[in-house]
Amino acid sequence: MPEANFDHLSTMRKDAESIFSAGIEAVTGDRAVFQHCRLAGSVFHACDLCFDMNRFDRIWVAGAGKASAPMADAIEKQINGKIAGGVVSVKHGHAMQLEKIRTIEAGHPVFDRNSVLAAEEILSLATSAGPEDLVIFLLSGGGSALMAKPAPPVTPAEKQDAVKQLLLCGADIHEINTIRKHISTIKGGRLARAAYPATLLTLIISDVVGDRLDVIGSGPTVPDTGSYGDCLRIIQHYGLSGKLAENIVSMLENGASGSLAETPRADDPVFEKSYARIIAANGTALEAARRKAASLGYNTIILSSMIEGETRAAARLLSSVAKEAKNSGNPVRLPACILSGGETTVVVKGTGRGGRNQEFALEAALDIAGMENTVVLCGGTDGTDGPTDAAGGIVDGQTIQRAKHQGIDAESCLENNDSYHFLQRTGDLFVTGPTGTNVMDLHLFLVA
Amino acid sequence: MPEANFDHLSTMRKDAESIFSAGIEAVTGDRAVFQHCRLAGSVFHACDLCFDMNRFDRIWVAGAGKASAPMADAIEKQINGKIAGGVVSVKHGHAMQLEKIRTIEAGHPVFDRNSVLAAEEILSLATSAGPEDLVIFLLSGGGSALMAKPAPPVTPAEKQDAVKQLLLCGADIHEINTIRKHISTIKGGRLARAAYPATLLTLIISDVVGDRLDVIGSGPTVPDTGSYGDCLRIIQHYGLSGKLAENIVSMLENGASGSLAETPRADDPVFEKSYARIIAANGTALEAARRKAASLGYNTIILSSMIEGETRAAARLLSSVAKEAKNSGNPVRLPACILSGGETTVVVKGTGRGGRNQEFALEAALDIAGMENTVVLCGGTDGTDGPTDAAGGIVDGQTIQRAKHQGIDAESCLENNDSYHFLQRTGDLFVTGPTGTNVMDLHLFLVA
Repeated sequence: MPEANFDHLSTMRKDAESIFSAGIEAVTGDRAVFQHCRLAGSVFHACDLCFDMNRFDRIWVAGAGKASAPMADAIEKQINGKIAGGVVSVKHGHAMQLEKIRTIEAGHPVFDRNSVLAAEEILSLATSAGPEDLVIFLLSGGGSALMAKPAPPVTPAEKQDAVKQLLLCGADIHEINTIRKHISTIKGGRLARAAYPATLLTLIISDVVGDRLDVIGSGPTVPDTGSYGDCLRIIQHYGLSGKLAENIVSMLENGASGSLAETPRADDPVFEKSYARIIAANGTALEAARRKAASLGYNTIILSSMIEGETRAAARLLSSVAKEAKNSGNPVRLPACILSGGETTVVVKGTGRGGRNQEFALEAALDIAGMENTVVLCGGTDGTDGPTDAAGGIVDGQTIQRAKHQGIDAESCLENNDSYHFLQRTGDLFVTGPTGTNVMDLHLFLVA
Repeated sequence: MPEANFDHLSTMRKDAESIFSAGIEAVTGDRAVFQHCRLAGSVFHACDLCFDMNRFDRIWVAGAGKASAPMADAIEKQINGKIAGGVVSVKHGHAMQLEKIRTIEAGHPVFDRNSVLAAEEILSLATSAGPEDLVIFLLSGGGSALMAKPAPPVTPAEKQDAVKQLLLCGADIHEINTIRKHISTIKGGRLARAAYPATLLTLIISDVVGDRLDVIGSGPTVPDTGSYGDCLRIIQHYGLSGKLAENIVSMLENGASGSLAETPRADDPVFEKSYARIIAANGTALEAARRKAASLGYNTIILSSMIEGETRAAARLLSSVAKEAKNSGNPVRLPACILSGGETTVVVKGTGRGGRNQEFALEAALDIAGMENTVVLCGGTDGTDGPTDAAGGIVDGQTIQRAKHQGIDAESCLENNDSYHFLQRTGDLFVTGPTGTNVMDLHLFLVA
């Protein structure tokens, strides 16, 4: 183990950045594919699965998500000669030149015309795949917006409005997804239905807490559990019958009365030759970050990859673990790297600028104010955080004092949700630029 | 290690209760004293300190707090022959028959006439102690209310009203304590001033997050840092000048102008022969609970003894650690006992009945719903939780399902802050009766 110097904040801040970077590198699209997939002779190994490529007539690649282009690139590099063609949908500005697979640029976070075109091309590719074909589907964060096609006669504008109404009335994400899946032509297992009877392999980079397959990208290739009847109950529960587009309500009513095909359940034959595997997730990034931290000489602990809830409360609680480490050596001895990840939610009350990671960093700066040799880095693994150019913040035990010297009041910045300008002025913004992948956020506490 | 049976919820629930009990036992007044103090020949050892008892003319014992009677009892058992006399103030109904030390019963959480009498007796005892005397002062949770004497001409009613006004306007606990100490005759180091030039030994059971000596019981025997000037600034900041009693405002103004003695600072001679040591705290209970859990076969981890913030957010975050343990074995392998402690704050919106520990348990029940072999126990170490007869709640992965079968909706109980009636109906209340000590709350997650 190298001689470590934990006594200098600047060293520790650099450590935090390289630990974060190591986490990101482990979950990039190409790395995730190379880590879990390889061709040995004619056998393609993907996680715990093996496919004899000679058995297939043709192999197709489709995908949607921020990381789908580098994922497709890695797949091409491994089985290029065997690919018949394919298409993946990425964010505007993120197209890549691939040999066999075309990239479409589409809208994110709000879907656009190209998102619909991408969905149509992918459905068409899946439908045309024969019983002796293999379809490899590459799904990652953003896939839901980058591949979207409302079921006719529902229009894209009506669907967007429905989601907005559901959010406003306080419906939770599972209720919203239930309705989303039932007014879509591709979500909720419908892409699997299109691909049947081809063999279908879905490789996934998870961007949701808990890594549930039916939640990531609204589960286009996995079984659904919700029903048209559930949709009507949700609409009734929130009193939305008169507020949603007539097209939507009448379609859901038709579905509930049995006139439309329900989303496929787990026992549906379309899943007989369908396999889905997660090849990267928040936990993957945490484990890689932990290895890097250990190589830098820190004692490490991963608390959870499933941190949810209000941002400031989470920051405060995780700070209390860092304080305990400083005081008692629990739950990990110094020098310590305390790792966690997930996705928190900011309660917006003010008019300032920021994102959940920057707000986390500002709250943590207050919590650890005055603690020696303590650094907190919190960042989005996609390199973005709210409507800002930063990925998050990197603060230390002296951040609040630095702010005071500049006449900046941390508490009032926090009340105004103005973490961006606070961190900008104290020099504590953490900027990476887009990383091309997304497994939610990482929070690192270094305490020496 | 005994053969453990982690497969049965009922066994695990019993384990949780005995782990909690082991935590409490370690922080009772008598155990805390016996653990840290002993007489060897003529030398009295207290933590890292030694006092040659033959050097003292007389030894006096004073104290205030829920645990002060059992603490005094343990001191008597060790050095009975050497005690000249003493007095400790306890809650109504908690008097004990001691040999040399008298117990006064006083008001808690709101101080009463007896609290003032207790403060007067203790001040008088301290003042009468000579330079060759030793005063042992026993402080524990509730000490602030059980020993209270506003500085004349401020009346008890005026002081109570001031604290209420400060709470209402959003002042934090440190601001409230700054003012409390400056309108008291005994807080903020003034008891140490009274005892000087006697030798003063303060033994403390901490009931505050972070165990700061100047916060516990408003620090009657330790240096203060706030000033009369700070008090005026706080009053101005919250626009309270016209709202507080004229007696209070004019006294603080007199103090700020130099006409009154300031609370003693760390370099004040009154602290030359004054020593204060914490003999039990939340961390003590956590360590004892951990040892018990380990003896039952659980892998253990202490996350923090400093959990603060909103109750539900804390429960949710700690639940996410339990889920991670179940999924990945991080931060501790199964069967796991995940321990933490502190004091959270309920945001009251509803009209139901409960306390922070019961609300924590109900939120946790929702978070762990459906998880196999998972038990959460959350309780106040004083055996009370809010205005109820329970200490907290003990829930498991089936609690929510049990509630559903009875037609009880957990979410709406939680929204109405009605955790007591929810837990009562599911059979998940945790009732211990008063324990006679207080080191805030313990949260245990057992996952197998």
